[in-house]
Amino acid sequence: MRAILPEDSLLSAEDALSIYISKVPPKRKVKEINIIDSLNKISAEDIYSRIDLPPFSRSTVDGFAIKSSFTPGKFKISGKINIGDYKEFEISENEAVEVDTGAVIPKGADAVIKIEETKIEGEYVEIPKKLNFGTNVAWIGSDVPKGTQIVYKGEKITPEKIAFLASAGISKIKVYESPSVYVISTGDELVEPGNELQPGKIYESNIHFLVSRIKNDNYSVVGYKLVKDNEKEIEDAINEASKIADVIILTGGTSAGEKDFVHQIIRKKGEIIVHGLKFKPGKPTLLGKFNGKPIFGLPGNIVSTIMIYDRVISKYLSLMRGHENEQEENEVAELLLPVKADKKRFTYIPVYLVGGFAIPIPFDSYMVGSFSLADGFIGLEPGVELKENDKVKVTIKRRDSRITLIGEEDKRFESLPLRKIYLGSQVSCKALEKGIGDIIVVSSLFCAPEKYDYTIERRILEQGEGDEIGYFDWLGISKFNRHPSIKLKSPSTALNFIGKAKVFAPEGYISEGKEIGKEKLFVIVRNKEAFKFLNGIF
Amino acid sequence: MRAILPEDSLLSAEDALSIYISKVPPKRKVKEINIIDSLNKISAEDIYSRIDLPPFSRSTVDGFAIKSSFTPGKFKISGKINIGDYKEFEISENEAVEVDTGAVIPKGADAVIKIEETKIEGEYVEIPKKLNFGTNVAWIGSDVPKGTQIVYKGEKITPEKIAFLASAGISKIKVYESPSVYVISTGDELVEPGNELQPGKIYESNIHFLVSRIKNDNYSVVGYKLVKDNEKEIEDAINEASKIADVIILTGGTSAGEKDFVHQIIRKKGEIIVHGLKFKPGKPTLLGKFNGKPIFGLPGNIVSTIMIYDRVISKYLSLMRGHENEQEENEVAELLLPVKADKKRFTYIPVYLVGGFAIPIPFDSYMVGSFSLADGFIGLEPGVELKENDKVKVTIKRRDSRITLIGEEDKRFESLPLRKIYLGSQVSCKALEKGIGDIIVVSSLFCAPEKYDYTIERRILEQGEGDEIGYFDWLGISKFNRHPSIKLKSPSTALNFIGKAKVFAPEGYISEGKEIGKEKLFVIVRNKEAFKFLNGIF
Repeated sequence: MRAILPEDSLLSAEDALSIYISKVPPKRKVKEINIIDSLNKISAEDIYSRIDLPPFSRSTVDGFAIKSSFTPGKFKISGKINIGDYKEFEISENEAVEVDTGAVIPKGADAVIKIEETKIEGEYVEIPKKLNFGTNVAWIGSDVPKGTQIVYKGEKITPEKIAFLASAGISKIKVYESPSVYVISTGDELVEPGNELQPGKIYESNIHFLVSRIKNDNYSVVGYKLVKDNEKEIEDAINEASKIADVIILTGGTSAGEKDFVHQIIRKKGEIIVHGLKFKPGKPTLLGKFNGKPIFGLPGNIVSTIMIYDRVISKYLSLMRGHENEQEENEVAELLLPVKADKKRFTYIPVYLVGGFAIPIPFDSYMVGSFSLADGFIGLEPGVELKENDKVKVTIKRRDSRITLIGEEDKRFESLPLRKIYLGSQVSCKALEKGIGDIIVVSSLFCAPEKYDYTIERRILEQGEGDEIGYFDWLGISKFNRHPSIKLKSPSTALNFIGKAKVFAPEGYISEGKEIGKEKLFVIVRNKEAFKFLNGIF
Repeated sequence: MRAILPEDSLLSAEDALSIYISKVPPKRKVKEINIIDSLNKISAEDIYSRIDLPPFSRSTVDGFAIKSSFTPGKFKISGKINIGDYKEFEISENEAVEVDTGAVIPKGADAVIKIEETKIEGEYVEIPKKLNFGTNVAWIGSDVPKGTQIVYKGEKITPEKIAFLASAGISKIKVYESPSVYVISTGDELVEPGNELQPGKIYESNIHFLVSRIKNDNYSVVGYKLVKDNEKEIEDAINEASKIADVIILTGGTSAGEKDFVHQIIRKKGEIIVHGLKFKPGKPTLLGKFNGKPIFGLPGNIVSTIMIYDRVISKYLSLMRGHENEQEENEVAELLLPVKADKKRFTYIPVYLVGGFAIPIPFDSYMVGSFSLADGFIGLEPGVELKENDKVKVTIKRRDSRITLIGEEDKRFESLPLRKIYLGSQVSCKALEKGIGDIIVVSSLFCAPEKYDYTIERRILEQGEGDEIGYFDWLGISKFNRHPSIKLKSPSTALNFIGKAKVFAPEGYISEGKEIGKEKLFVIVRNKEAFKFLNGIF
């Protein structure tokens, strides 16, 4: 049974989610726990302090409490208040009471002098200087008064909030229970990592991503299973999952292929609420219900899984645990190169972030490697085209503070502990122009910098006949190739095509072939620290 | 035994840490684990992909693979390749092979047309349009070629990196073991939250903070204990901790008080490497060694614990688990009001972040409530003074996206689900000027806005004699009081001082007293959404 999803009638992720929420409202459960166990949970209540903080006026130093208006002078030491003690002292004009840091200020006192600033003579203490009212006193309620809100309903509990709750004497908190999730990955082509990869197969990664991401989001994973494209097996797995989990997530089988059983099973035995999103990557997503439980079906490719989890499922789970103020880290950056959205679908494009610029990464939805190496991504409405230097909001996924090399790949850089952004000279010439990156490598075939620190000369070789699948080059030397071409990300890739196609690559990547030209790589070092990495190789 | 720490000879946190690291080098342990368990662990190795991704050229759609240069036309269907299958097909000019999404592209094919764009007639498929070379093909290695670095030594493993490792067939990873920590809180004044607070006592919060923060940082807590200021008990606890933990953290007892046993015990039975930091809050910090284990002693106040953990201990623990690239979230903001550092110590000041402005919070090191309610903090070198509008780097701790009220406190706002920044009219008049915040409340005694949405009139009352501890006002009406005063953060606090001092507060906070003036609060609403909260109360 085929179920082609027509582009024009698809819903945006936001619309799909809001329809889904109205039909399958997120269920919340509340439980009371000890605050020490409440880290990263979501509060199900507003909590106010029942006491003032500090709960009494305290000394902030070891010293003598006195009446400030009678300083300087000699004071009779009339006692001592240790930290934790309470004594009904009331001092008069010429009296001083010794206090520990944190001890109660005696009645009548309004300042404390540090012990090291005094001279003690028997029963008397000499205070040599004028003290201001309030010196070294932490007044009752001066941090926060009784009734201050500590935590609001829907707030995520941080270690600092736990400290605040404890300081206010609160030991219990009502939080939302985290939903439990079961993950099922389907596909005859999938092999467990660590095993040998037979031709035509690929490694399973959806379970790996979902299980770790769900845990990272502080939900629980109650089970996961890898099953073949077999209707019975998949249905059994869904049934089992629906018994023990609050939410079920499946990957694969949601599209129009004849072995795409997932959507067929949910349509027959459950209910499909939404099928197909105006979203790239991730179009054949489905949102449904099975045995009363929310069920999400994702297309099998891993980048769709990452994006749809992030943009749709995590938002639904977040509502189940009561977190309406989920915040993601964003940063506004300028585009280093133009970008274009899919004409009909909201489009995500991974980017590197360097010096305030977003460098878009050539991308298709199967590219998990490129996506995982990115620093973040941008989202574009259908049909949007943006120019160089346009501002974009980048959702940050990671920050990499290593020395950054931008430009052409070369064997010499292979073992250097750098962050390498190998996107060829189109990108590195722009980086040079904008002044970003620590080490820039440009090819003489693209641009010639005024100044540079090192050069690398290399021959470009041609090999093979190109009769099998066509012509190839790799990004950065398309000048050598007037034919339509695949933009490969690395000369290493060229190796795969020897014997199948005409391959162009610099020496070092292919061992022999006809020299069809030369290129010079200019290496520009902008960051002094970066020289230490390069000195050995030049 | 007193051990006064002279201000001038103290070390900065950075210098103290680097001396400490040279004397007590962080020990690392490596273990191999399954990648699915490696979330947030730190890789102890560089990992490269041993395969190309994709591992073979695949179709990205359900359709027919053909040679693009022969389209449009009619092609003979010569077979089918299912996903996960491998067949030794080689197609010729007028042949087409049906392929699933993700299936191998047969030899000789260089493009795939979607099934819904074709017309099938028996054994033939009609392709009505010209296809470009490479259409709907994910070429072998076009995501990342064999040899691409997936993870670098010292990198924190994210869910996406786990997906990438799985996709490359890697199932195991060498990571650094997380150090285990034992936390000991000392102090006769400490009461467990949930119990009644006797006069002079305060609630324990150091353990609560440290245990949850250490877990949040992905280290393990192997034990924690609250002990009295008793030399034997503390020594026993340290001994026990040093047997089972990699690192020991103590709070309290590091200063010059006579019951400050912690530094005495470590000096006698272990070794003190650093005692005292040029750091506010947190001066009486010590870094030492006990039974061969690193031991950290923090002053007892909770804000010092938070800051010294963050700035010193977490950096040391991070080295023990091999993470040299720890990144914190920063944001550059403009100061709404001037700030001043301590003359001799590096100073941290908590701030609210609103609309690109950092609003400094009046602060002293005992103020855990104020600190926990902040969005982040700024750090100032000793002696630094900054002006309004100066740019500062804010270290972000949390993001709060609720509607924000800035200005005067009033009983009417009490139950509204808003983020309330009650710092009086000095702050709200500035916020008005800069155009930040959603709801602004200014007192007529401070500034008069041109436009406003609501007004509140209230009488200011005076109560009590002020003979016991002096005169008070609360922040925002200092105009009523020419005497030296404590700046209280809220009129609620005034209640604590009735009977002890002369108190000024608006009606509603104190019930009776002499009217000494009137004020008008102007409420300005800048965000339409905010009206829904206020409509009910005006």
